Amino acid sequence: MAVNLPALPALHPIPGIRLGTAMARIRKVNRRDLVLIECIAGTQAAAVFTRNRFCAAPVLVAREHLAHAMPRALLINTGFANAGTGEPGLADARACCDALAHRLGCAPTEVLPFSTGVIGERFPLDRLIASLPACVATLSESGWEDAATGIMTTDTMPKGSSRRLTIGKETLTVTGITKGAGMIRPDMATMLAFIATDARLAAPLLQDALTAAVNMSFNRITIDGDTSTNDACMLLASGTGAAIEPGSDGYTAFQQALNEVCLELAQAIVRDGEGATKFITVEVVGGASEADCLEVAYSIAHSPLVKTAFFASDPNWGRLLAAIGRAPVEQLDVNAVSIHLNDVRVVQRGALAPDYTEARGAAVMKESEIRIRVELGLGNASTRIWTTDLSHEYVRINAEYRS
Amino acid sequence: MAVNLPALPALHPIPGIRLGTAMARIRKVNRRDLVLIECIAGTQAAAVFTRNRFCAAPVLVAREHLAHAMPRALLINTGFANAGTGEPGLADARACCDALAHRLGCAPTEVLPFSTGVIGERFPLDRLIASLPACVATLSESGWEDAATGIMTTDTMPKGSSRRLTIGKETLTVTGITKGAGMIRPDMATMLAFIATDARLAAPLLQDALTAAVNMSFNRITIDGDTSTNDACMLLASGTGAAIEPGSDGYTAFQQALNEVCLELAQAIVRDGEGATKFITVEVVGGASEADCLEVAYSIAHSPLVKTAFFASDPNWGRLLAAIGRAPVEQLDVNAVSIHLNDVRVVQRGALAPDYTEARGAAVMKESEIRIRVELGLGNASTRIWTTDLSHEYVRINAEYRS
Repeated sequence: MAVNLPALPALHPIPGIRLGTAMARIRKVNRRDLVLIECIAGTQAAAVFTRNRFCAAPVLVAREHLAHAMPRALLINTGFANAGTGEPGLADARACCDALAHRLGCAPTEVLPFSTGVIGERFPLDRLIASLPACVATLSESGWEDAATGIMTTDTMPKGSSRRLTIGKETLTVTGITKGAGMIRPDMATMLAFIATDARLAAPLLQDALTAAVNMSFNRITIDGDTSTNDACMLLASGTGAAIEPGSDGYTAFQQALNEVCLELAQAIVRDGEGATKFITVEVVGGASEADCLEVAYSIAHSPLVKTAFFASDPNWGRLLAAIGRAPVEQLDVNAVSIHLNDVRVVQRGALAPDYTEARGAAVMKESEIRIRVELGLGNASTRIWTTDLSHEYVRINAEYRS
Repeated sequence: MAVNLPALPALHPIPGIRLGTAMARIRKVNRRDLVLIECIAGTQAAAVFTRNRFCAAPVLVAREHLAHAMPRALLINTGFANAGTGEPGLADARACCDALAHRLGCAPTEVLPFSTGVIGERFPLDRLIASLPACVATLSESGWEDAATGIMTTDTMPKGSSRRLTIGKETLTVTGITKGAGMIRPDMATMLAFIATDARLAAPLLQDALTAAVNMSFNRITIDGDTSTNDACMLLASGTGAAIEPGSDGYTAFQQALNEVCLELAQAIVRDGEGATKFITVEVVGGASEADCLEVAYSIAHSPLVKTAFFASDPNWGRLLAAIGRAPVEQLDVNAVSIHLNDVRVVQRGALAPDYTEARGAAVMKESEIRIRVELGLGNASTRIWTTDLSHEYVRINAEYRS
């Protein structure tokens, strides 16, 4: 079902970062459902977590642990989100950290837990802990592909991205994996992303880089407007490679590589969006502010009527106008709005473009990749987000997920 | 498909208000698609229109005409919304008013046009105008049922409501009809509602009464979060009956009857929501303000994940928690939140209620009418809205609407 999502590209290893997986039978049998990412001493970390007020237990524990120490290990389970599980869920998350810390010989606060799956039920703690030795036994710097598979839930394909860059005479690498296919919207989503680099950066600088990259990628995608209780994006810098100084050309190159990895991962989530048959870019330009542009973009991207029209390959531009018209943008002037679908001008200053024909609109709508470009005519701000259509398959997946 | 929507009840005539219909073949043959509501001289009117910035041509014309004169006639066509049609669309709307005014012997500004249907295409002006005589010929005070059918689009059933009340020794009547089945959300929707009474009220008082009634009914329903370019709710007071004085018991009784009619009409729209299989009441209590309660209620009602879970009769309360958690409510305390589904307590102070069982949740979810009650534990404000689930049928209807 995924829309033009290529097979997992080569994921270059990161010196100092090892990954292991296990089949822990957490919710299903015969699948990798437990992933361990281990990093060498001295690794710096940055993180972005969900803004949902109902945070899952692992998010609460991971935040708490990060406040105390840099991590030595990340432990990720699928099957259950460990959200809405109250005190017992918190205890489960801590018990996992304790058990893994014991085995790795580090402090429990040096372990960060991550969970994804069904909300509101506890995971089988015994089976999870019993599988830790198997996970540790498979630790390898070349474990990225297996880990990408191990974190999948409703994803139909594993997702990863990798870039190499040269700083002076040294080569650095940025490699990441992600999961998530629904319940995706800005301010993170049911998505987990784990990115690592061998670059050497202090944690605050690393956090700046990650925040900047996430704001142009994971925070610019939406499948269905829902935000999860669990999402997290981690960036680890093992520091085995070249140092990155703030303001240097190296920093610029590093940020660029990180941006590319984050964008490729975020777009992979959209391409594999639940039931997606189209990959839609919504570009809003000419706004008075980026915030206004985002309001218009999300009003379009969250409209079920727009999304079903795209599923039907119907150039129903009236639904686009209606979605734009309800965006809470103070100065919105309908007579200044123009809309393109790919290269076809559809609406010009609030009315049907004179050169538009239904045939041209229909031809664009048959494409699997469509760019909606909205010109507001109010200023110089712009933004771009990515989304999907709304199909029968989306309803089927989400109606049957627990049945 | 409609959820427990009874057949059209008896719609009591309103002295001074006559209704006529015609089959004008505007977009389809063999169906009533043109409706005329004529009112006697002296009728007072109040109106609430869409807040969408892209207003349809008839909305612009109706607003303009209402600013000049009290109406003598309302002309409603289905098939085409006459929205996104630019200057030609405005001219079409005016031409209809001119033609009807000529036939009725009133001023064009005393005619208000209303349209509903496909956006972005012009309607067949000639056929519409040619059918005006047939429409006028059928004018009758007992024309409410035919008019209720004549304004339908994707509705599966006609919708009306009628109440009688006694003021002193006089009986007054409030009767209304409505249409709308999708693209429904607060601040009006693709809905048209025409309500009339024989009570005698000045226009400003009538407007107060209508605004109050709409805010507790049409502005508290949502099918899919989309707002249309065309919606309008008109209230006509022919004044042939008893006078209603501000602040009197009669006013209270009249407001009550109007509220009931509006609520019954609004709920009928939800019950006939596109693809609806459940009628869902979302009640949020204990908020710091009604605005906060509404944010939480709409966050739930607009969540595709919540809606698909209800379609699947799956008591996936984790999705409810996640939807509440992403509502923009400053003081939201997840540990104070409790949730009931009908009489089953599901979540108590942020965690699964001790007496909750999956079997009890599943039993509630099989019902066709479900009340979600959320207690925020922050204050004394509350609100109630109505919505539906999200089904395969919704996608089918909206993907195929123009094909």
